Amino acid sequence: MKGNICYSKSSNEICIVENGYLVCEDKKCAGVYTELPEQYEFFPLFDYSEQLVVPGLVDLHVHAPQYPFRGMAMNLELIDWLNAYTFVEEAKYKDLEYAEKAYEIFVDDLKKSATTRAVVFGTIHKDATLLLMDKMEKVGIKGFVGKVNMDRNSPDYLCEENAEKAAIITEEWINACEKYENVKPILTPRFTPSCTDELFEKLSVLQKKYNLPVQSHLSENLGEIEWVKELCPGTKNYGDSYDRYDMFGNDCPTIMAHCVYSGEEEVETMRKQGVFVAHCPESNTNLSSGVAPVKDYLKKGLKVGLGSDIAAGSSLSIFKAMAMAVQCSKLRWRLFDQSVEPLTVDEVFYLATKGGGEFFGKVGSFEEGYEFDAVVIEDATIRHPQELNVKERLERVIYLAEDKNIVAKFVNGKKIL
Amino acid sequence: MKGNICYSKSSNEICIVENGYLVCEDKKCAGVYTELPEQYEFFPLFDYSEQLVVPGLVDLHVHAPQYPFRGMAMNLELIDWLNAYTFVEEAKYKDLEYAEKAYEIFVDDLKKSATTRAVVFGTIHKDATLLLMDKMEKVGIKGFVGKVNMDRNSPDYLCEENAEKAAIITEEWINACEKYENVKPILTPRFTPSCTDELFEKLSVLQKKYNLPVQSHLSENLGEIEWVKELCPGTKNYGDSYDRYDMFGNDCPTIMAHCVYSGEEEVETMRKQGVFVAHCPESNTNLSSGVAPVKDYLKKGLKVGLGSDIAAGSSLSIFKAMAMAVQCSKLRWRLFDQSVEPLTVDEVFYLATKGGGEFFGKVGSFEEGYEFDAVVIEDATIRHPQELNVKERLERVIYLAEDKNIVAKFVNGKKIL
Repeated sequence: MKGNICYSKSSNEICIVENGYLVCEDKKCAGVYTELPEQYEFFPLFDYSEQLVVPGLVDLHVHAPQYPFRGMAMNLELIDWLNAYTFVEEAKYKDLEYAEKAYEIFVDDLKKSATTRAVVFGTIHKDATLLLMDKMEKVGIKGFVGKVNMDRNSPDYLCEENAEKAAIITEEWINACEKYENVKPILTPRFTPSCTDELFEKLSVLQKKYNLPVQSHLSENLGEIEWVKELCPGTKNYGDSYDRYDMFGNDCPTIMAHCVYSGEEEVETMRKQGVFVAHCPESNTNLSSGVAPVKDYLKKGLKVGLGSDIAAGSSLSIFKAMAMAVQCSKLRWRLFDQSVEPLTVDEVFYLATKGGGEFFGKVGSFEEGYEFDAVVIEDATIRHPQELNVKERLERVIYLAEDKNIVAKFVNGKKIL
Repeated sequence: MKGNICYSKSSNEICIVENGYLVCEDKKCAGVYTELPEQYEFFPLFDYSEQLVVPGLVDLHVHAPQYPFRGMAMNLELIDWLNAYTFVEEAKYKDLEYAEKAYEIFVDDLKKSATTRAVVFGTIHKDATLLLMDKMEKVGIKGFVGKVNMDRNSPDYLCEENAEKAAIITEEWINACEKYENVKPILTPRFTPSCTDELFEKLSVLQKKYNLPVQSHLSENLGEIEWVKELCPGTKNYGDSYDRYDMFGNDCPTIMAHCVYSGEEEVETMRKQGVFVAHCPESNTNLSSGVAPVKDYLKKGLKVGLGSDIAAGSSLSIFKAMAMAVQCSKLRWRLFDQSVEPLTVDEVFYLATKGGGEFFGKVGSFEEGYEFDAVVIEDATIRHPQELNVKERLERVIYLAEDKNIVAKFVNGKKIL
């Protein structure tokens, strides 16, 4: 592939090769070159000389069933928002006809976006979740999808009957996922307030039996954190409510969304146990949750990626998540805590690619051996009268790209757009 | 015009007439009706039955010459950002060939946006500013445009020779503006740090002689405010540095951009003297300036509108400014000061239409007698599986509209897009 190639090696360095060659061999990156080495001369060439080529973006946290009400109903904080809007919408996915219509739109929009990998919440409904996975499998997006578990503090119309039944249905769902190549199951206890101890115990058994990853929510909202304290009196912190069931890193690959208010001890456990933080700046803004101290997390060596968190976040665009991550970190610095510096453009580009990509293995960079996920961006519609270098063009794209600017997308070596 | 009509009467109420009629008579709104009154039956009908129809949006603060570097170079705070990037770019407009290329892009993008009225900064260059005005006049956007004045604390390459010459050239420019119908001149001392007392005096004379409005910047950044204190030892506050030359409301219609840190006394003067605040949330975020307490300003009865503030703001979209105004007010509330509530969707819609529109007279609403500025929005690309009411559709548009969704635009009764 020929183009203006941009990728991260580390969180503070974007590598740029203007008019370079990016070689894909056996679905993997085989290097970035200014001159094409002789041995690749007979490979087919995709010529994107005028365009930007970046690694596929990674969305570490997105609620597919909430896509219908993106951009609406953000006048409440987390718990009230869940009860007033979110649970009502998610309950509709019991009806497969509705799920078909809704997930068709979600997956089609995801396909047109710059996202190549996504870690997705479904609903409690097994069949609707499989329908979502069918659709993602078909378009070629890679990802993890979770049938949600919740058996307490949830409305009657969106609550699993009991822990035992929840576990049985969840295991049926896990077995039904065997057929997929691109999408894999991820255990998804919604969050501590909505899961009984018994449910956690049973999910922990399934986690070990099938060696599954886990996703959930952590320390997002001050009221939520207080509630978890009340619900789990024996725990050291919110994170511990997952850790006590071995669903917090170590042998269990784990993504925790938000971590806006994780204390020192919680952060240190996440670091030691390799828990991924899904930073969702637009969501944390729209629900007035706050701003996670991401620069600090990076300094401490935590694993961090970005999430759109539809529908608390309004946009599926991980470019928008990058811009918002910078913007929110600036307001956090100015309004709240000058000890944590704002994020840079280089850092958020890293978070959206290699940072989140690490959850999938060697994903999110063009370094040798990385899976070949690439997005081609045509930025000529963002007009300018002066000369711009590739770095400047990339920065503009982060702030201003729309779906129309995404002109080609490759996942694991295969062109899907 | 037939469509789903949305407009503000006050800051806390969006009026919605589903499938209604909006009548234009002699360039003015003649009412919104659920059934078309008999006397209008033979008027030509624009049928936008499926679409949303809203008042044209008002951008109270935008730097046209900074458009080329939108979305880039936002790693510094105000004063350093001006010196490192902004002044360097603005100096290029001495070259009319560059100005031609750059302003062509700016005005064309402005035309495609939902903005019908704009209050614009040019550069210190008379000819380039007239070129910008020619272009705005031609496409039919209404607005005020200012040739910038600055004669101190500015780099040699972007500094007027002295106050006297500045005033002579400014008066030549004012006289050259007589030919315009749509765009009018507005006096534009850049901000207090870049204008000598002598320059302010001479501009004040021109203001009174030609009865011109004034635009400038106020209380944007903490370092800037300290600097103004040093530069103007006799003044009560930053606002007073304009007020002492009668360029702060009363008989001089005035827009002050930002007002992030206006103190009680400054705010009270603005209220009494009817100074407009141009609230620029994206700019104040990108330059780490802070967040203006807009809810408080509204409660106190200040006149407030929104500004894109290109290029400290990356986007020309006033829809984006609305969303950011809500978002930034939520973070201000959460991180800094719970005594000032977040803004609502209804309030930011008001700010972007009737709030800012008031600077132009009866502009920004569909109430009877208002100038007929209307924008038609096709939101079918924002797909959804469920029924949505008009209010929900409007809210989504505020968060998610792109230029492609703007399908028609009328300014003062004339269709310009």
